[in-house]
Amino acid sequence: MFESVKERRTVRKYLQKDISEDLLNDLLETSCRTATVGNMQVYSIVVTRDAGMKEKLAPAHFNQPMVKQASVVLTFCTDFHRFSQWCRERNAEPGYDNLLSFLNAATDALLVAQTFCTLAEEAGLGTCYLGTAIYNPQQIIDVLGLPELVFPVITVTLGYPDEHPAQVDRLPLEAVVHTEHYHSFSPEDIDRLYHTKESLPENKQYVAENKKETLAQVFTDVRYTKRVNEALSANLLEILKKQKFL
Amino acid sequence: MFESVKERRTVRKYLQKDISEDLLNDLLETSCRTATVGNMQVYSIVVTRDAGMKEKLAPAHFNQPMVKQASVVLTFCTDFHRFSQWCRERNAEPGYDNLLSFLNAATDALLVAQTFCTLAEEAGLGTCYLGTAIYNPQQIIDVLGLPELVFPVITVTLGYPDEHPAQVDRLPLEAVVHTEHYHSFSPEDIDRLYHTKESLPENKQYVAENKKETLAQVFTDVRYTKRVNEALSANLLEILKKQKFL
Repeated sequence: MFESVKERRTVRKYLQKDISEDLLNDLLETSCRTATVGNMQVYSIVVTRDAGMKEKLAPAHFNQPMVKQASVVLTFCTDFHRFSQWCRERNAEPGYDNLLSFLNAATDALLVAQTFCTLAEEAGLGTCYLGTAIYNPQQIIDVLGLPELVFPVITVTLGYPDEHPAQVDRLPLEAVVHTEHYHSFSPEDIDRLYHTKESLPENKQYVAENKKETLAQVFTDVRYTKRVNEALSANLLEILKKQKFL
Repeated sequence: MFESVKERRTVRKYLQKDISEDLLNDLLETSCRTATVGNMQVYSIVVTRDAGMKEKLAPAHFNQPMVKQASVVLTFCTDFHRFSQWCRERNAEPGYDNLLSFLNAATDALLVAQTFCTLAEEAGLGTCYLGTAIYNPQQIIDVLGLPELVFPVITVTLGYPDEHPAQVDRLPLEAVVHTEHYHSFSPEDIDRLYHTKESLPENKQYVAENKKETLAQVFTDVRYTKRVNEALSANLLEILKKQKFL
């Protein structure tokens, strides 16, 4: 397993080959062994195989082609709806319409999602995470019919790989691991830690294509801008309120 | 690997046996292959081995004994601090002081944490998640010295197992997996889906010990009460603001 994780790459192109019900169910069943807060399992996974449903989900993910091409699309959601229903039908008053409960449930959903992807990749499947699930949550809520206290936190597209892309770079371990205390970096540290990333031909090309001076500017000015982040944050707050988590 | 995940249980008692630097680094390095939003790696992992530091962290986790007993304690954090520093030192204006960025970074941190735990368990180690990281974030921020845009999202205690507890129950797959659309459950569905859980001798004992009528009441009245959830949610909002994510 170490090997399949070490060799991991995101796969965005898939063969037109079905994933059997048995394999998918085995992956899902095994993933549910993942740790969960208080053994409440406050998550749900919506499985999309139907071409018409993929078509409806695609715009929420900015029409990234993986959504329609993948054999299976999985939407991992917080779910305090089922748990609260169980409580009410057992003479117990649920109190899970708040931010802590949202984060507890989002944690559950994300941990299960990652176990699922690790297992799926070990089984020879390719996966791609779509963070766009929290960019356009209302569209996903509408298409999948998610009730109160259910909120999409991440989407995974899944299929047999039809590409074997180069592995992308990672920062040196010292950039992300801190011993005993969080340590701040000097400008020289930052230069050293980001040197390889900034030197890669594909990243230099990326800067040139976007007509920017630095790779960081591609992130701040093009890919993840303050303006868009703030607009999406305001939207997130609104939909979290609508789904009764705030 | 399927087997180690299928056989997984949370381990809370550990042998007094060191985890080698080589093994820990290999686990961390491999975990960093996990998918990350825009390849930004907006997370950090703080490694605690020092007994004095474990002592200081313990109260934030309500003095659960795993914190002091574990060979290693890992605090997985959102981290837009390092990324924002890189941006500023590259003539780029970061815009990551908002809720969307917090959730993106929390997603990064949680996915890495779960890969780490899956790998650690495959390597024969035992793990326990402590969700208390978001219950008392300020204490953790103080002890570990976390700067703005760094926020603890989950803690993992790690060690060689000194127990082999029974596996806990899980709901049937049909409780958490929905096909094409989210489906609502009838009261009879809920009865069926929760029947096994409610029938377990340990859960019946749990209800009796807590002098409650139903298992659900143990959750709503004792373990995860509305009052505490709301107080912790207010605290979370405050500390998220202090760390500049809101």
